[in-house]
Amino acid sequence: MSADEFTVIHDLFAPHATSEGARALRDDAAIFKASGTLVVTTDTIVEGVHFLGEDPIETVAMKALRVNVSDLVAKGARPVAALLNLVWSDARPATEIATFADSLGRDLKFFGVELVGGDTTSTPGPLTIAMTLFGEPLGARVPARGDAQVGEDVWLVGGEIGSAWLGLQLRRGEIGVARLREGRDEMQAQADSRRLAQSMPDYLKMPNEDFDAEAAWLMTAYLAPFVRPECAAIVSQFASASMDVSDGLVADAAKLAEASEVAVKVDINAVPFSIPAERWAFSGGDVRKLITGGDDYVVLFTAASELRGAIEAAEVGQALRLSRIGAVEPGRGVTVVDAKGQAMTIPDTGYSHKLGR
Amino acid sequence: MSADEFTVIHDLFAPHATSEGARALRDDAAIFKASGTLVVTTDTIVEGVHFLGEDPIETVAMKALRVNVSDLVAKGARPVAALLNLVWSDARPATEIATFADSLGRDLKFFGVELVGGDTTSTPGPLTIAMTLFGEPLGARVPARGDAQVGEDVWLVGGEIGSAWLGLQLRRGEIGVARLREGRDEMQAQADSRRLAQSMPDYLKMPNEDFDAEAAWLMTAYLAPFVRPECAAIVSQFASASMDVSDGLVADAAKLAEASEVAVKVDINAVPFSIPAERWAFSGGDVRKLITGGDDYVVLFTAASELRGAIEAAEVGQALRLSRIGAVEPGRGVTVVDAKGQAMTIPDTGYSHKLGR
Repeated sequence: MSADEFTVIHDLFAPHATSEGARALRDDAAIFKASGTLVVTTDTIVEGVHFLGEDPIETVAMKALRVNVSDLVAKGARPVAALLNLVWSDARPATEIATFADSLGRDLKFFGVELVGGDTTSTPGPLTIAMTLFGEPLGARVPARGDAQVGEDVWLVGGEIGSAWLGLQLRRGEIGVARLREGRDEMQAQADSRRLAQSMPDYLKMPNEDFDAEAAWLMTAYLAPFVRPECAAIVSQFASASMDVSDGLVADAAKLAEASEVAVKVDINAVPFSIPAERWAFSGGDVRKLITGGDDYVVLFTAASELRGAIEAAEVGQALRLSRIGAVEPGRGVTVVDAKGQAMTIPDTGYSHKLGR
Repeated sequence: MSADEFTVIHDLFAPHATSEGARALRDDAAIFKASGTLVVTTDTIVEGVHFLGEDPIETVAMKALRVNVSDLVAKGARPVAALLNLVWSDARPATEIATFADSLGRDLKFFGVELVGGDTTSTPGPLTIAMTLFGEPLGARVPARGDAQVGEDVWLVGGEIGSAWLGLQLRRGEIGVARLREGRDEMQAQADSRRLAQSMPDYLKMPNEDFDAEAAWLMTAYLAPFVRPECAAIVSQFASASMDVSDGLVADAAKLAEASEVAVKVDINAVPFSIPAERWAFSGGDVRKLITGGDDYVVLFTAASELRGAIEAAEVGQALRLSRIGAVEPGRGVTVVDAKGQAMTIPDTGYSHKLGR
């Protein structure tokens, strides 16, 4: 049974909008008290373009929020408030909206973000979600893409490269779980799987019938990117240029290089891959897929080489995978070098949406 | 030929984003310097839901902006900055994006709004546009829907009720131009049409082959709502409660009444209709369609009755149609009374989106 727009807003979303300025989502505008600099970002995700129609609605909500949190974190900002434009597909059951709202509510809480407003409407097309996030910069500077200087180091922080791409292939059935097993210690993997199977919510397990911890981890990286707000502190303390990696490491490094009018050299051996991704590449997988696939949602930044010691000494958890992956050089574009220092040929520089016919 | 997302942003939208904080739309976030209170609103329009697929792309851009400007104006705020989420349909030619961007650019300029950021992506579904607007309140108070008090007057300012609904019927062919002519002075109407035909942009003339000034005016009210930023001053000076009328006068008055926990009485004779709408109603049209149809985008507000003289003395242009249309009373809900003071039966209280199946 379809649901009424005003009932949905009042019953499902208003409980997550408790600040005074949100006016319980019953007004036409939100009131936002601001002093100083706000960092504002907005990103839209579309079913069939940014997520699969069969992805769990719980993780669709998480992805809609997290792709935006990722942009703020990469600017060294703390996310504080959000607007939601929910364009619900006529083809989807209205009962899913409650699940969406619950999951979004949990994730807003997790990231300390207050829902302050939005808009709910229907579409004959695919489910479409835009979110707009407001953040407070932790430092005085908000690094741009274009602030890299020749001689600086290039860093990644926030997680792994390529896991989300592998997860998407698993979801699509392009790569099977059997392929992941090549060369691995099955005793250990099965113990891991039993442990993880108990703690993981059900919606993250399907459609992985024969539950496998590694596959579940990779698919979760695709479904609900592991965005780490702690990275904002690293960015605000040390970064010259920074941006999040969302369209593939090579493509995004190319954007940073272009905006800064420099060249970026990346050492493939220094790029943080997950254990299954590394094993997949060593057993015949094309490592270039990992660095050109998208949806990583980690932070790429540059910093003066004099800061190298301070950055390495910064207290970041292992999960953040803080890694010095290359250098800013004179010139233009991105070069990826292999273990022998040879430039690799990269056929595909990542994802750009084609618009219209 | 399809267009590349980054080229579209750089070539078509960046020229309208010249503030420092917009970073020429080449960064992942916008920097927004704010001090004090910001009023923030966001609204999405979807092809086939909020506009027709055959509506000119120029007015689709204008509507996407204006429905949001309308929300800010109704809160007594001056619009200053905008974010655009453009979700372009795969079925539409990419060449239309330039026309969309040009028209949006002109309208942003007209309303004094700076584009500071956004997002462009593709969809297999209908064209979908979300805009988020930031406004600065002109006064210390930002009136809510829920601030009406028993004994106050109910006012409308900003334009006419029902013109957009009539315009939509004309666009859809539900009402023909011949029907508009009933009872009118054809000599005058033809002179008006000749004059207007010369000044009106071509995209507003179709599909009205036999060009008629009244029909064109009504259709334009639907296509590109005549939102008047001057209304914000009236709101900020005088309004207790206020909101924009977008879902139909009766439905929106009901929302104001509900949020304020009062009843609203509307005198149908005091409601500002356009000349063709009034003639249409007098010659057999159902006036209740005019007050329940949507897309008016005028401001509904309440004000203490002691302010009546000051409001009537306020210098507002005739086009703003400042009208005292009723009173706030004890009770709940909306009553519309006719010339004899009799309550009218209103069958349909306006538009609410049904979500999902």
